[in-house]
Amino acid sequence: MKPDEKMGTWGVSRRQMMIGTGALAAGATVAHLGGLLKSAEAKGGPTEKWPWPYEKLDPAKTAEIAYEEWYRVFCGAAVINSVFSQLREKVGEPYTSFPVDSFVFLEGGMVGWGMTCGSNTGAAIVANLIIGPRIAGATQGHQISEDMFQWYSDASMPIFVPKTPKVTTELVKTTAESPLCHVSVGKWMKASGYPIGSPERKDRCARVAASNAFHLVELLNSWKDGKYEPSSSHTPVTDYGITAQMNCMECHGDDVPSAPMAKK
Amino acid sequence: MKPDEKMGTWGVSRRQMMIGTGALAAGATVAHLGGLLKSAEAKGGPTEKWPWPYEKLDPAKTAEIAYEEWYRVFCGAAVINSVFSQLREKVGEPYTSFPVDSFVFLEGGMVGWGMTCGSNTGAAIVANLIIGPRIAGATQGHQISEDMFQWYSDASMPIFVPKTPKVTTELVKTTAESPLCHVSVGKWMKASGYPIGSPERKDRCARVAASNAFHLVELLNSWKDGKYEPSSSHTPVTDYGITAQMNCMECHGDDVPSAPMAKK
Repeated sequence: MKPDEKMGTWGVSRRQMMIGTGALAAGATVAHLGGLLKSAEAKGGPTEKWPWPYEKLDPAKTAEIAYEEWYRVFCGAAVINSVFSQLREKVGEPYTSFPVDSFVFLEGGMVGWGMTCGSNTGAAIVANLIIGPRIAGATQGHQISEDMFQWYSDASMPIFVPKTPKVTTELVKTTAESPLCHVSVGKWMKASGYPIGSPERKDRCARVAASNAFHLVELLNSWKDGKYEPSSSHTPVTDYGITAQMNCMECHGDDVPSAPMAKK
Repeated sequence: MKPDEKMGTWGVSRRQMMIGTGALAAGATVAHLGGLLKSAEAKGGPTEKWPWPYEKLDPAKTAEIAYEEWYRVFCGAAVINSVFSQLREKVGEPYTSFPVDSFVFLEGGMVGWGMTCGSNTGAAIVANLIIGPRIAGATQGHQISEDMFQWYSDASMPIFVPKTPKVTTELVKTTAESPLCHVSVGKWMKASGYPIGSPERKDRCARVAASNAFHLVELLNSWKDGKYEPSSSHTPVTDYGITAQMNCMECHGDDVPSAPMAKK
């Protein structure tokens, strides 16, 4: 997606929100939180050698697994296990020793608090486990996370339709304009009229997890082929002077505060 | 904290926001996302046997480690490693094989998007890895996550002062009333006047990570002693009909939408 298209979609242009960019320390996207620009050696165990061995997966098959797994472990762990269950078969360790089911807590934007949609957190976990953290010199895990968050925000969800859906009525699609569970689920519930406990809402979220798994594998496959190009252009710290989403006005209305800026 | 105190602090009483509770499916807190109420067998590897062996840790020592680790791996991974680096020494596996540094991406509410504060995600990851997911029959990992989010939201942060702080000026304390990075950092920046790239803001976040690590170990130690009692009373799906925080009006103003409710 081109930046201009994104600006239109998000309801606030980047230009509108560009406040004092020049006063902020310049920096690459991956260095935007500052402090540690050089690589640091991992202090952990044998799984902290990156990248983990990866074999290309079939996006549609992965999405089907995520859809089914949602009904066992919910969004976050479903996305992780849709990839890792296959890599446990194809590769073995370190995937075998990763405790996927512990990540059930990502459900509902983390134990129901409506924060980051678990399908997004799960995708970011997979990308960063396989490719490694930016402090180890790998930036693509970080970038794929950004891409997933932006792609999810802009997507008309749910995209993926499973071969044997548990709910057969056609589901309304909505664009979250946010990677947050509360916003994503809330907009869909408003448009569809279905309550949170309905089979339709559950199947919608299962399909969102499947959609995320599908796109995540597309990105990982292109990375494996050496063809991955980051697509997200959202640099909140540089642009706004604070960690943030792009749609400031959705929560702040017209009264968007300005962050304190560094002295020139 | 008593529920009444919390309501006052959050700027919206539970009573105000209690909409159609009776119309929602009743259910225990841990079952609030529905679908899977019975235990499911883990499909993963050798690390999916819970609880992981845990030995009680010193909260202050753990907080010091988190503070130092923040400057290497930032908030989320710092909280995880503050606990796991000690358990690698005391216990060994499965802690040795957990790839802590991959969780650098939790920084800035996940790659700078200002969503869940990494110190909260890190704490929830630790609790759920050690205690296990609710689908395996363990509810305390889920509950400690809720407790951490609520405690963080209500706390005047940063609490912990390291023995040898990198920034020696006294830091302003603020109450986030949210577990989100954007809200937590934003309120502190507004009160302090320090920009995101300042040494003061960085040290504030390092101390927040340390504060979270301290409280997390307090909860884990009480769980180890069989004395843990959940304290969070936030049940958004039951109370509001949607995954959510408690301070609806902070983003929605007076125009808080009602979620579609299940038919009686």
